[in-house]
Amino acid sequence: MFGQKVDTNAQFLAKILTEKGIRVLFQTSVGDDKELLKSVLRIARDRVNLIVTTGGLGPTANDITREAVSDSFGVPLVLNNDAYMHIKKSFGNQHGDMPAGHKKQAFIPDGALVIHNDNGTATGFVLRRDGGEIICLPGVPGEMQFMLNKYLGIYALQHKSDEACTLTRNVHTFGISERSGEDIGKDYGGSEGQIKTMTLVHDGIVTISILATAKGREDAAKMLDRAEMWIREKFGQAVFGVDDDTLEYAVSALLKKSSKTIAVAESCTGGLVSDKLTNIPGISEFFLEGVVAYSNKAKITVLGVPDDVILKHGAVSPQAAKAMAEGVKKVASADIGVGITGIAGPSGATEEKPVGLVYIAVAGDGFSEAKEYRFRGSRTDIKRFSANTALNMVRLKLMNKYTTIK
Amino acid sequence: MFGQKVDTNAQFLAKILTEKGIRVLFQTSVGDDKELLKSVLRIARDRVNLIVTTGGLGPTANDITREAVSDSFGVPLVLNNDAYMHIKKSFGNQHGDMPAGHKKQAFIPDGALVIHNDNGTATGFVLRRDGGEIICLPGVPGEMQFMLNKYLGIYALQHKSDEACTLTRNVHTFGISERSGEDIGKDYGGSEGQIKTMTLVHDGIVTISILATAKGREDAAKMLDRAEMWIREKFGQAVFGVDDDTLEYAVSALLKKSSKTIAVAESCTGGLVSDKLTNIPGISEFFLEGVVAYSNKAKITVLGVPDDVILKHGAVSPQAAKAMAEGVKKVASADIGVGITGIAGPSGATEEKPVGLVYIAVAGDGFSEAKEYRFRGSRTDIKRFSANTALNMVRLKLMNKYTTIK
Repeated sequence: MFGQKVDTNAQFLAKILTEKGIRVLFQTSVGDDKELLKSVLRIARDRVNLIVTTGGLGPTANDITREAVSDSFGVPLVLNNDAYMHIKKSFGNQHGDMPAGHKKQAFIPDGALVIHNDNGTATGFVLRRDGGEIICLPGVPGEMQFMLNKYLGIYALQHKSDEACTLTRNVHTFGISERSGEDIGKDYGGSEGQIKTMTLVHDGIVTISILATAKGREDAAKMLDRAEMWIREKFGQAVFGVDDDTLEYAVSALLKKSSKTIAVAESCTGGLVSDKLTNIPGISEFFLEGVVAYSNKAKITVLGVPDDVILKHGAVSPQAAKAMAEGVKKVASADIGVGITGIAGPSGATEEKPVGLVYIAVAGDGFSEAKEYRFRGSRTDIKRFSANTALNMVRLKLMNKYTTIK
Repeated sequence: MFGQKVDTNAQFLAKILTEKGIRVLFQTSVGDDKELLKSVLRIARDRVNLIVTTGGLGPTANDITREAVSDSFGVPLVLNNDAYMHIKKSFGNQHGDMPAGHKKQAFIPDGALVIHNDNGTATGFVLRRDGGEIICLPGVPGEMQFMLNKYLGIYALQHKSDEACTLTRNVHTFGISERSGEDIGKDYGGSEGQIKTMTLVHDGIVTISILATAKGREDAAKMLDRAEMWIREKFGQAVFGVDDDTLEYAVSALLKKSSKTIAVAESCTGGLVSDKLTNIPGISEFFLEGVVAYSNKAKITVLGVPDDVILKHGAVSPQAAKAMAEGVKKVASADIGVGITGIAGPSGATEEKPVGLVYIAVAGDGFSEAKEYRFRGSRTDIKRFSANTALNMVRLKLMNKYTTIK
């Protein structure tokens, strides 16, 4: 517990368990100390029906979860032959002989159910005791997640109860205020029973997080659908996706749908827009070229920005942004060109052109428009705000100019 | 507790408190439920001397920390006039009249010490009780961190004890295996008392995290210095920085030191190297231009890659990487050119050229070299590995070719 790492397992577990109708009441972290862990397990045993632990199942002396569980629940550890063979096999295939320490990983509490680890040597297990259940999983996220899913498959078969199920969905918007996200949550929350909303803000993206609680998974899913629909109607084109959807994904889907190609000229965003777009598999058909024109020379020679535009209006100007968008469109023979120029700071500002002043232009066949923005925050904040705003401008252009809206 | 967000406050608190000599034993999360929170506070009160809470100090009905603390410790809430004026003032200056709900935020347990919030309306407080202390801070990270520092200033004055202090330092390396990081930790750990190490791996970066525990802060700092020196001697140029240092920061510092300029031509990394470099303030003096040459046409027309190189060897080849590096160097009139081409997947692979095959070239005056890499993982994993590897190649070139090493 020295704060070297952010714990992402806790968030994952809370989300997945909630979806399965398991209400997550407490999450406790504790260092690699057997007595402290035992005290946590004893408290947990007395207040909940299901305990999930992650970590501490490795081969080293610091891996104390097995022993702490054994002590707390009064169940001795025994060598599980099946687990032992599974671990041994993984070494046989890949690394030759199995190091001695790994045998320890095949010891689990007597009577516990083994959860095999197909991606590592840390064996998981489920122990049932006094009407409750403890499930112990490794700490490596990939191993943990895979094994949790295995367990939840068994869990679902055994718990066909009518416990309430809570599902969540994040609806992402761009261009609305945090306040209007909160207000809409309140409005809708009032109109339907077990719906809650939360608003999260992140680099200009306002996400309305919906939680629906119902008797069954299907009912909760239907409630989510209705709430999403309601939000989409209220916010219209500001909604760009749900859950894992990103602005760059929305742009790539629209490029594909309308068979248009894009090229990007960036100054203050330094390649971030290109980076985001190229995270999308299959984008190479539509994304032709990016230019990070940091120097004026690059703006002039590579993008063909007229040098008198820079002389007269400066490199940070609507005129320069438009010339960059038009220039990169032409150089790459793309359908759409994007130009971004601004002052990301901390230096480079003047009285008329403060840190955070950004011009973003989108050029297409028959149009070329630049908009002025004033962002706040650090250099990287301004980069991220600018990149998202540029992607959103392209998205709206593609929706309204190139795509038939039903 | 629905898992919508990763908790970063927990990590921050553990790190800062550990540095102040406060051993962090447990961290518990609980939803906005007063009875559950009270049960957590009661358990905490019985097992530790210092409790820190974050969140639940807002103006809404869901903000229940004040009341839960009041109930658990048997101390009534009273209006703190000083806090009330502080909140009122923040509205007077900015938003006109103060909404009614905010008055609630000025109620704190009787006798508690106020911690003013200069960035919001959630008043913090410290309550001393039965030899222990509870400190309640808001959940917004910026507000919480600022107020925690205020509190720790007071804490340091009152606790000039000789409790052990644990400091941490992360030493970042590139090019060594995780295993050798672990081994070195063990070797050094054996040679000095209260030093522990952990190895963390992240996009090719192997970080050795050192923890030093000593009676005083100064002694712990000296132990860290010695351990860092020892690791630097063992790993030499593989060490590129400590704590917040990044590969791009190391490259920018070397560019500045040697007064060299750089330009980058990226294919599979899609702008990520440019993006990383342009996160560094002041880089505009040294970073001249980036080209994201996704299409073959861009490679040929913008970078001047000879079309027979692509015809003969393919766009993913050491020859293409070198031609890209040399091309962008020439186009931008830079001292150093970088070329990256590869297959980030999931599509685009052939039998000879699998997903993850990446060629990275660095060209300078009088040299031009390409290296082959085979990375594993998702599209974005391969992008990040490739970008870090490219930055590291530039770093080593700058260290060994352009910079005098002492």
